[in-house]
Amino acid sequence: MRRESVTRIMIAASAAVVLSAAESLALEDIMVEEVQANADYIWTLVAAFLVFFMQAGFAMVESGFTRAKSAANVILKNLMDFSMGSLAYWAIGFGIMFGISKTGWFGTSGFFFSDFNIDRDPWVFAFWMFQVVFAATATTIASGAMAERTRFIGYLLYSVVVSALIYPVFGSWAWGSLYKGSGWLEGLGFIDFAGSTVVHSIGGWVALAGAVVLGPRIGKFNKDGSANPIPGHNLPLAALGVFILWFGWYGFNAGSTTRATSDTALIAVTTTLSATGGAVFAMITTWFKYRKPDTSIILNGALAGLVGITAGCSNISPFFAVVTGAVAGVLVVYSAAFFERIGVDDPVGAISVHGVVGAWGTFAAGLFNSADMFNLKIMGVQLLGIATAFLWAFPTAFILFKSIERTVGLRVSPQEELQGLDYSEHGSASYPNFTLTNI
Amino acid sequence: MRRESVTRIMIAASAAVVLSAAESLALEDIMVEEVQANADYIWTLVAAFLVFFMQAGFAMVESGFTRAKSAANVILKNLMDFSMGSLAYWAIGFGIMFGISKTGWFGTSGFFFSDFNIDRDPWVFAFWMFQVVFAATATTIASGAMAERTRFIGYLLYSVVVSALIYPVFGSWAWGSLYKGSGWLEGLGFIDFAGSTVVHSIGGWVALAGAVVLGPRIGKFNKDGSANPIPGHNLPLAALGVFILWFGWYGFNAGSTTRATSDTALIAVTTTLSATGGAVFAMITTWFKYRKPDTSIILNGALAGLVGITAGCSNISPFFAVVTGAVAGVLVVYSAAFFERIGVDDPVGAISVHGVVGAWGTFAAGLFNSADMFNLKIMGVQLLGIATAFLWAFPTAFILFKSIERTVGLRVSPQEELQGLDYSEHGSASYPNFTLTNI
Amino acid sequence: MRRESVTRIMIAASAAVVLSAAESLALEDIMVEEVQANADYIWTLVAAFLVFFMQAGFAMVESGFTRAKSAANVILKNLMDFSMGSLAYWAIGFGIMFGISKTGWFGTSGFFFSDFNIDRDPWVFAFWMFQVVFAATATTIASGAMAERTRFIGYLLYSVVVSALIYPVFGSWAWGSLYKGSGWLEGLGFIDFAGSTVVHSIGGWVALAGAVVLGPRIGKFNKDGSANPIPGHNLPLAALGVFILWFGWYGFNAGSTTRATSDTALIAVTTTLSATGGAVFAMITTWFKYRKPDTSIILNGALAGLVGITAGCSNISPFFAVVTGAVAGVLVVYSAAFFERIGVDDPVGAISVHGVVGAWGTFAAGLFNSADMFNLKIMGVQLLGIATAFLWAFPTAFILFKSIERTVGLRVSPQEELQGLDYSEHGSASYPNFTLTNI
Repeated sequence: MRRESVTRIMIAASAAVVLSAAESLALEDIMVEEVQANADYIWTLVAAFLVFFMQAGFAMVESGFTRAKSAANVILKNLMDFSMGSLAYWAIGFGIMFGISKTGWFGTSGFFFSDFNIDRDPWVFAFWMFQVVFAATATTIASGAMAERTRFIGYLLYSVVVSALIYPVFGSWAWGSLYKGSGWLEGLGFIDFAGSTVVHSIGGWVALAGAVVLGPRIGKFNKDGSANPIPGHNLPLAALGVFILWFGWYGFNAGSTTRATSDTALIAVTTTLSATGGAVFAMITTWFKYRKPDTSIILNGALAGLVGITAGCSNISPFFAVVTGAVAGVLVVYSAAFFERIGVDDPVGAISVHGVVGAWGTFAAGLFNSADMFNLKIMGVQLLGIATAFLWAFPTAFILFKSIERTVGLRVSPQEELQGLDYSEHGSASYPNFTLTNI
Repeated sequence: MRRESVTRIMIAASAAVVLSAAESLALEDIMVEEVQANADYIWTLVAAFLVFFMQAGFAMVESGFTRAKSAANVILKNLMDFSMGSLAYWAIGFGIMFGISKTGWFGTSGFFFSDFNIDRDPWVFAFWMFQVVFAATATTIASGAMAERTRFIGYLLYSVVVSALIYPVFGSWAWGSLYKGSGWLEGLGFIDFAGSTVVHSIGGWVALAGAVVLGPRIGKFNKDGSANPIPGHNLPLAALGVFILWFGWYGFNAGSTTRATSDTALIAVTTTLSATGGAVFAMITTWFKYRKPDTSIILNGALAGLVGITAGCSNISPFFAVVTGAVAGVLVVYSAAFFERIGVDDPVGAISVHGVVGAWGTFAAGLFNSADMFNLKIMGVQLLGIATAFLWAFPTAFILFKSIERTVGLRVSPQEELQGLDYSEHGSASYPNFTLTNI
Repeated sequence: MRRESVTRIMIAASAAVVLSAAESLALEDIMVEEVQANADYIWTLVAAFLVFFMQAGFAMVESGFTRAKSAANVILKNLMDFSMGSLAYWAIGFGIMFGISKTGWFGTSGFFFSDFNIDRDPWVFAFWMFQVVFAATATTIASGAMAERTRFIGYLLYSVVVSALIYPVFGSWAWGSLYKGSGWLEGLGFIDFAGSTVVHSIGGWVALAGAVVLGPRIGKFNKDGSANPIPGHNLPLAALGVFILWFGWYGFNAGSTTRATSDTALIAVTTTLSATGGAVFAMITTWFKYRKPDTSIILNGALAGLVGITAGCSNISPFFAVVTGAVAGVLVVYSAAFFERIGVDDPVGAISVHGVVGAWGTFAAGLFNSADMFNLKIMGVQLLGIATAFLWAFPTAFILFKSIERTVGLRVSPQEELQGLDYSEHGSASYPNFTLTNI
């Protein structure tokens, strides 16, 4: 509770001996380094807290975009994938992603914080805190695409495996480890500063696998393949979720410096401009395509702008940040229409927002790389990373969901689905004092 | 991803040559300065993120205080005025407000970040990030006063002009530029630390112009001029918005130091005490005036306390912060009643909360100025600034809204208004699973 | 608005005289200290802002867990206990808790910020800001347990007394003062880093007293003593509240260092792991006990994990943080069932989440103390602190509520209760555009 200065004590101690000028200066260096390190700690932690809060954003977006009869269920999935996933990431995932590797393919040490020099370097705690919320983001993306028809227990199992294995293995390729050298994709020069691919595309392709294995919600498609709209039950709640996500995204992108430096400022600017570009161009696209500026699509446009800039937030100029976001905003509209046309039911558009736009953002990080624009070699590496992410995440997630389907079961019964998952899975109603309709 | 120390590298480099004691000390100075600058960056950015989050607060307050049939529309207006406005502020507004001036009246350089020494001084990015969320706050204030009857496209045009011109021009008078000397109001000694006038009154007078040009909602006033209450559809949502605004306001006020210093602490305290004073005295006022402590009025009382202290948060003592908030809390009740009596329909009370109380707060910053209390000269300058803000913002906004009215159109048709703007402007419903009533 | 360096000016001034090497180094020391202090200010303030935001979390949790007809009333109580309580804590509470003591039992100076060296040490403002939001947390806990039947004016009186007296007196015993030596419990070695007992148990026992004095809501219990469930009206709102509380809790726990140091990192980790442990084990418990994973109970499980780790967040290892949270998650389920069985109506489970689990967390901080695990002496002191908190808070609060009951009145009339407090206390409805049912 009381403020006492470690540094002051050090100085007092040092006064007992006569220091040479050189020794005194060396002591000053250490003191200055300590203060900078302290600033790095608090910046990284505050950013991690903001990214944690994105869980609330995902929960509200996904709940608002789906029906009232499953509103609490989709929120609980978000809460529990974070809870199960954090424990799994502590136990296994963090070691796989950032531990020292014996195989050369992923880390094989550092499980349960073992093997790290915790006592001498508490940085591992700050770094884990920042990473666990990233893992949780990747994991939670699928919950929206799988909403309103997934068994709760099946989803819990899924979240453990993604947090412990699927996400960390790819992460180790792209972001290397805490102590050893870089991962193989990073070694090739792959640019994904804050995770358009590592987090969002991985999450998006897992979501695609989930939506494919599950199949569409009852009533989503007619026999001729045409789709029926199933409007979200609470657009203000969804919009609140988008604002929360945008707010948290500043921690996601600018915090990825994990250092308190002036580099953070450009990142905040590009993040803002890309998000606004995404919102504006999604609005324009929907206005032309559907004659009215559709609420849900505009909200997803803002998210697309955020996903799009995540890879290149630190190496794209403000102008090209607007371009990156604008393309993301157009792309998300057509991508969502495409997946609906091929019969994939993604209630919240997660596959398009995170998977497809994540891929675009990763490519844009190479295309608009300020230091070396339109460099074919860099663009080739970006494409390799994008393809690798799909080839890793989609098949492994597909196998995972099929395995869950054949064991504990992945989808609720038609009767339970029609009742709504709030009642069938949790025995409660989200809105017991409101008269509901069209459910 | 990995933490490497620039400073350490500098030291390592310096070890190659033998430095004199004086040279070593100079190097130390630079290192310490760098760490303080880094702290300034993260403080200013975190504060900017908090102010960004106020957009969610405005959206929820305005949506909660209006009817269910236009709930998503009012939120979309908040999202899009930020999105359109940020692009406009990047392109034009920031240069007008903080660029170097050729005219002496406002900046004429720095559009699209041009002319700034971006490579050598990334501070311009941090400063822009902090300023763009202020511009967005000023712009978004009108959306509440104009809710439930404004055409979406007209509102989009409005938000571009306010963010690009109306807000930045006055801002340049009161807050000067990034590099050149101060603006003319600042030069006279005008005190408006975080923007009671620059942001809130400007926004409030623009809102007044909008509400006057639009006219009241259908059914708001009877033929004899008496008013009918149109209660907000979701008070918990509005209350959440108030909490979010209060939370973000700490960034608004304390972040306006744009430096990580001990000066921030008093600002946090005065902001808290004024907000609580506003809530308590609005409650007492409504209890006496209307016999019951009215929910909406108390919520607006807290906001009034926040607007009131914004100008003087750094130069008013804790005791007078309570007084400032208390007066704001009383004032907002009578002001809202006054505007209703003269036939201005402001669904959320934005004109009173931001315009009128912003003027009071600016006056209070002179009146209760700790360094020199009740100084007539300072109070005169404050009145000059308050009057100038009105004389600049109201007429220009009036002309703007009239121009929009005569071109693309400002108000929806009566039929669209009765349907609700969610359906007529966006083709969707905010709450499709709920049975609605009294709409 | 413009950035000028105080330090640079100091150096410039110092250049006018020739400094010895020793003098120069001393100047450097002061500069480095100043930068660290600045980092401490912004960390402590940002943490305080996060803790402030917990008020929104409490408001949403309590409103969501109760009925629609009193939704705004319970939120207003949260807003007003913060507002009344902050003024009371500024006037009286802070002086009692952290002022210099003449009695030896609690502080008797520092009321209205008097007696502190404000001009020379603005730290008192930062410290107050951090402490006032803690006081508000303790005060607001009772509002959930007392929901749907408490008179508004009675609750206002209560909040003043708890913030001014009941909370600060115990706080002074456990956390000592700003300048003088430690309180008597602290002197014995009592471990309660961020307030499992000081804030949460105190709040919980006050809530228990309130619920007992009030009696249960009409219809809660049958004549045979069996209980009827009264489901909360808006689970997404309650879930949002839980996410907000979790987010703010990082400020609550990690901010309690009140210094920007590396110690903050472990705290963030243990807070996360305990919260996840609480959610997972509450889920498992409810699944076994009630056959379905109940939404409300899981949400309370996450909160229990957070309350549980609050005392020991800085001295418990990550592994035992999971254990602490897991026990909290199990405990909260059985505790809530217990209080219902003995006829105490706690609509949101506040007594269990904060009172009972706060006691467990305080014991766990001794039990799992990394430096000296299972030390009987420490565990004895922890039990003494836990018992003292109950013996102080429950009786004083009981007397307080009885006094309010006999003077202004504590409970609304049965007719008002059936109408709902939104209408009877505030003359308004929370959801006037929605058709309500089961109310």
